[in-house]
Amino acid sequence: MAKIQVAVLGATGMIGQRFVQLLEDHPWFEIGGLYASERSEGKKLREVMRVKDIHLKEDTLDRRIEQLDAKAIAGRCRVAFSGLPTEIAKDAESNLAEAGVAVFSNAASHRMRDDVPLLIPEVNPDHLDLIKGQATFAKGGFIVTNANCSTTGLAVPMKALDVAYGLCFVCVSTYQAVSGAGYPGVPSLDILGNVVPHIKNEEEKMEIEMHKMLGKMTPKGIVNANFDMVASCARVPVIDGHTESVVLQMDRTPSVPEIIATLRAFQPAPQELHLPTAPTQAIIVRMEDDRPQPLCDAYAGEPARARGMAVSVGRVRQSGKYTKLWLISHNTLRGGAGGSVINAELAKAKGYL
Amino acid sequence: MAKIQVAVLGATGMIGQRFVQLLEDHPWFEIGGLYASERSEGKKLREVMRVKDIHLKEDTLDRRIEQLDAKAIAGRCRVAFSGLPTEIAKDAESNLAEAGVAVFSNAASHRMRDDVPLLIPEVNPDHLDLIKGQATFAKGGFIVTNANCSTTGLAVPMKALDVAYGLCFVCVSTYQAVSGAGYPGVPSLDILGNVVPHIKNEEEKMEIEMHKMLGKMTPKGIVNANFDMVASCARVPVIDGHTESVVLQMDRTPSVPEIIATLRAFQPAPQELHLPTAPTQAIIVRMEDDRPQPLCDAYAGEPARARGMAVSVGRVRQSGKYTKLWLISHNTLRGGAGGSVINAELAKAKGYL
Amino acid sequence: MAKIQVAVLGATGMIGQRFVQLLEDHPWFEIGGLYASERSEGKKLREVMRVKDIHLKEDTLDRRIEQLDAKAIAGRCRVAFSGLPTEIAKDAESNLAEAGVAVFSNAASHRMRDDVPLLIPEVNPDHLDLIKGQATFAKGGFIVTNANCSTTGLAVPMKALDVAYGLCFVCVSTYQAVSGAGYPGVPSLDILGNVVPHIKNEEEKMEIEMHKMLGKMTPKGIVNANFDMVASCARVPVIDGHTESVVLQMDRTPSVPEIIATLRAFQPAPQELHLPTAPTQAIIVRMEDDRPQPLCDAYAGEPARARGMAVSVGRVRQSGKYTKLWLISHNTLRGGAGGSVINAELAKAKGYL
Amino acid sequence: MAKIQVAVLGATGMIGQRFVQLLEDHPWFEIGGLYASERSEGKKLREVMRVKDIHLKEDTLDRRIEQLDAKAIAGRCRVAFSGLPTEIAKDAESNLAEAGVAVFSNAASHRMRDDVPLLIPEVNPDHLDLIKGQATFAKGGFIVTNANCSTTGLAVPMKALDVAYGLCFVCVSTYQAVSGAGYPGVPSLDILGNVVPHIKNEEEKMEIEMHKMLGKMTPKGIVNANFDMVASCARVPVIDGHTESVVLQMDRTPSVPEIIATLRAFQPAPQELHLPTAPTQAIIVRMEDDRPQPLCDAYAGEPARARGMAVSVGRVRQSGKYTKLWLISHNTLRGGAGGSVINAELAKAKGYL
Repeated sequence: MAKIQVAVLGATGMIGQRFVQLLEDHPWFEIGGLYASERSEGKKLREVMRVKDIHLKEDTLDRRIEQLDAKAIAGRCRVAFSGLPTEIAKDAESNLAEAGVAVFSNAASHRMRDDVPLLIPEVNPDHLDLIKGQATFAKGGFIVTNANCSTTGLAVPMKALDVAYGLCFVCVSTYQAVSGAGYPGVPSLDILGNVVPHIKNEEEKMEIEMHKMLGKMTPKGIVNANFDMVASCARVPVIDGHTESVVLQMDRTPSVPEIIATLRAFQPAPQELHLPTAPTQAIIVRMEDDRPQPLCDAYAGEPARARGMAVSVGRVRQSGKYTKLWLISHNTLRGGAGGSVINAELAKAKGYL
Repeated sequence: MAKIQVAVLGATGMIGQRFVQLLEDHPWFEIGGLYASERSEGKKLREVMRVKDIHLKEDTLDRRIEQLDAKAIAGRCRVAFSGLPTEIAKDAESNLAEAGVAVFSNAASHRMRDDVPLLIPEVNPDHLDLIKGQATFAKGGFIVTNANCSTTGLAVPMKALDVAYGLCFVCVSTYQAVSGAGYPGVPSLDILGNVVPHIKNEEEKMEIEMHKMLGKMTPKGIVNANFDMVASCARVPVIDGHTESVVLQMDRTPSVPEIIATLRAFQPAPQELHLPTAPTQAIIVRMEDDRPQPLCDAYAGEPARARGMAVSVGRVRQSGKYTKLWLISHNTLRGGAGGSVINAELAKAKGYL
Repeated sequence: MAKIQVAVLGATGMIGQRFVQLLEDHPWFEIGGLYASERSEGKKLREVMRVKDIHLKEDTLDRRIEQLDAKAIAGRCRVAFSGLPTEIAKDAESNLAEAGVAVFSNAASHRMRDDVPLLIPEVNPDHLDLIKGQATFAKGGFIVTNANCSTTGLAVPMKALDVAYGLCFVCVSTYQAVSGAGYPGVPSLDILGNVVPHIKNEEEKMEIEMHKMLGKMTPKGIVNANFDMVASCARVPVIDGHTESVVLQMDRTPSVPEIIATLRAFQPAPQELHLPTAPTQAIIVRMEDDRPQPLCDAYAGEPARARGMAVSVGRVRQSGKYTKLWLISHNTLRGGAGGSVINAELAKAKGYL
Repeated sequence: MAKIQVAVLGATGMIGQRFVQLLEDHPWFEIGGLYASERSEGKKLREVMRVKDIHLKEDTLDRRIEQLDAKAIAGRCRVAFSGLPTEIAKDAESNLAEAGVAVFSNAASHRMRDDVPLLIPEVNPDHLDLIKGQATFAKGGFIVTNANCSTTGLAVPMKALDVAYGLCFVCVSTYQAVSGAGYPGVPSLDILGNVVPHIKNEEEKMEIEMHKMLGKMTPKGIVNANFDMVASCARVPVIDGHTESVVLQMDRTPSVPEIIATLRAFQPAPQELHLPTAPTQAIIVRMEDDRPQPLCDAYAGEPARARGMAVSVGRVRQSGKYTKLWLISHNTLRGGAGGSVINAELAKAKGYL
């Protein structure tokens, strides 16, 4: 079976490079072209790489960046993965869908559209069908978005618990890694030995996206979930891996062992469908006193292809009627490029590609 | 007026050195002796100092450490400030009280005793009278404790809001500095570029101490406060200053400007009594988008003597019926040695010394 | 005596703010105006401050930024302190000198001109007379530059040793703080938990500047010093304070105690003239095993006005015919704004202002 | 062919765990037992692991720690890899050699003995024959040591250049990772945002070990090399990977391209013999402006088994008659456990096992 040709948009940025890394040896997809702004046009990827610790093959590093042109891309690629900055993504992605390309985007521009799935295959695989309502669907073009990096790590275990016990209240405080701001991103003078308790629009995104993603798919579209959701977001001096402190109230208060069992038993669509980038275990529950930690757990997930795709949960404990837990997920893999790759895998498995 | 002679117990540790720093030029107190374990006996303070960036006078650095002996201390000092480790503090402090010494302690050993004030002068100055119930009070000996470092920073603004609006629910996630674990404390391999979501007993302490401190003083003792209190504690790679993400629910939901006005107008006992170590403003409310931050705000508090004694609050905002805010206070000053020094100042102002 | 009115150029940058901090209460100088690019024109300093942990007075924070105009500045200020970026500094500073203003600059643009002193008052106070050769001198306008931040900390003890023993070979490796790159400067992704062994042009600057500054003033100008000088420069995750590892060879090999005595006895011009920003001790020699360290020693220097102006030297030791030592100096005070302020003080003391 | 049974001594420490990691799937060796102090006896490795980010197999984690007993080890293992602390290593290793075990040690205790090879197969493979002079050799017992972690990374490229151009002078300043001090090792309060310019005995070790390792094997033993060697050592806030700034003088001054060619062409014994842990390229020369960096290059080395075993060199440049370069090698792999594993591979290849 021939692999599906895919374009990587914004290939020189933090998320773009993670796309390239995940697609280099993908069993279903093959990189058809790398695209970025005019500034990088014609240069080799190795000359414009901004993230030094992502190891790519020599061949890949020698590929040249092309300028983003919807028609040209449509002529060559069935799928586009977008790591474009929000302000450019809006029109560029619409143009691609118009040209018949299936766009899987990490940008926030289209996330809240009624006809665009804000998709995590572990959480709301049925939302994917929203694309049938997109005007460009008949030509094969559509847009699917992955969620914000901090929302993603939270949504996976919340889904498992919502199904089992019914969420009423979710309160989260984040400890977010600097890679979430891209490159050059956070100045070192701001974050060395410091905590910055503000990430622009992040709290709003988390609160809104959670309600959409845990919402119910109906013939008339998504009906948002209605638990109380309160998010506080901060940046900490960590390179990769968002840590989150979560406090929950559920319709009934399960015991700690029940919660652990529920999280461990969670086998959602990607695992059932054996999607290539799905980790064997969607949620890894740690029993140590002091885990998860970003240095140890950001890259959780097996087999090798799913490295950084599992969500690690630990320190599940109770305080009265409240349940507390900590979680970590990789912000540019699980909560970024990896999120869109697995979305495309779901679309393929469901026959949309 | 002659200054009151005071002993510093555990003078070679992180908190002990903060005591020495705060007492070097204190208007009411004078260091009568430095005490620590046998290991340091007879050595000069400069030889056993463990914290390099606290600047003390040459004379102070040349003082010699003496061995902890309750009788000898009682013969020379009216007051003892204790920075002893918990396991030693219990008996040592009891012996001193027995010998007629007024003990102001940073250790956790006696905090939850019914007859021991867990005291923050800004929060519960009336609790100080509990000492009259201590068996040793007639001889002039008693024990007063300051609260845990993370509890202290939280309790001050919570008190202001509880009085004004009535707290129902307090949910806090901490971002704690490494100095809170003393020296050598946290190994660098554990915390460089990392978050450790566990500090032993810290969550329990925060939940219990808040209820005692915001409790009501009655003729029969303290009646604990009864709002819901949920704490999650983590260590981050910051040297000084605990950051806390707080989510609140109150009996009525005040507007953001109301909350800010309430916090700014808070003028509790230490400010009314002009205690020497009290900052002009107990709570500093910051209006910037991204403050407070430990690098900028840990040492908040004026005048110079009160440096590190104010609590900085920022990003007050609402999410439905919940109020969110961030706060920072200095963990070894406001939440450690400074807490006990201001407790002793209150005791002096109230005629107990 | 009326204070001399001074302009601060580039007032919104890292060095500019250090100038403002040092000039707020200066006994000889008074801030006549703050200048920066058009972008900041008309805004209050507090709105464009980029460095959060420099504490300025409310009055100062309310001063408005004006646009850089040589004539307007000359009408109001006798002196200009320049924290301008190199590419703007060249013409702007020439225009100011042309307009009769005495310019003391931290920029590299004019440092290597034959008629411009590259001045550290502790090292080459006689070089100041070079200004008499500048075409604008007759109108009162001239340019004096301070040295590169890493060169400054090195040059002070090297001068003391050169005078005493004659330098033949100086080999230095630097461990430079991120504040040296200004704000936003070094991206956190580059430096968290990392070392970057490259700072553009820094090694070249160190090698060239040392030869000029330790050169001899002659009627025909400076004759460069001719010892071998080898510099290697790296950035480390430290906020303030450049650490340097130095290996020396001298005409004769003095003993360690001799070297320490020589460094301690060094009493150059600023100390003899009691310049306001000069520390009591130009070089502080530490005897501990593990000092100096940036966290403890970057701000060395007494009295308070001279904080961050002393150079700390430690671990003086021998390895065969080579002498090894470590040093630290504050890169934006001693090696930046403070360098130019003390240069202006020397100019005033010598009657040039 | 049956694998050789090997013991890991000090299995619970930083180096011990790296040994276990390297030996888990080794083609020639098989872990026969894990040994440590009484404190850990009988516990599973997973209970006493101190380094969280080394991933081992479940089977390995379930192995139990046994008490160090020379006879028992000799009865089961032909080889012992020692990650013991220096003070215990001396006698324990001698006893094992006495009992007929071939000991490959990371400890410093026996390094400077005349009859003990201080061995880096890339540098001085012929020194291995020294073991024939050890009294226990006839029974099959002997001791081979690997070099200090900072010496190792330096010695490899120095050997290549010494052979080609003759070294006269080597001046090195190190930027050492905290993992070099083991666990708990460096307290976070000492190193967060700081540089500590002192590592006990490290400079002495580097100066002495380099002369022995680059010395000449003669019938009468090693004749030390006699170039001038000056080392300055500091700790920086980096987790893994020692960075070194090197300044050299050689008998003739080769051009930069010549040096690069020499380093790249270096194909010493381990590469010629295809030892399993030898990287394809012993020295990797980087041409970027700002490499090597510990975050990107500490784990250099291919194939997978040789990860962290290559030395990365970059920024080769000249300053007069001096050559400057930067290098990085992994301190607990190349400069620790990996060093001893490759030593044992050489011994096996040469027929000593």
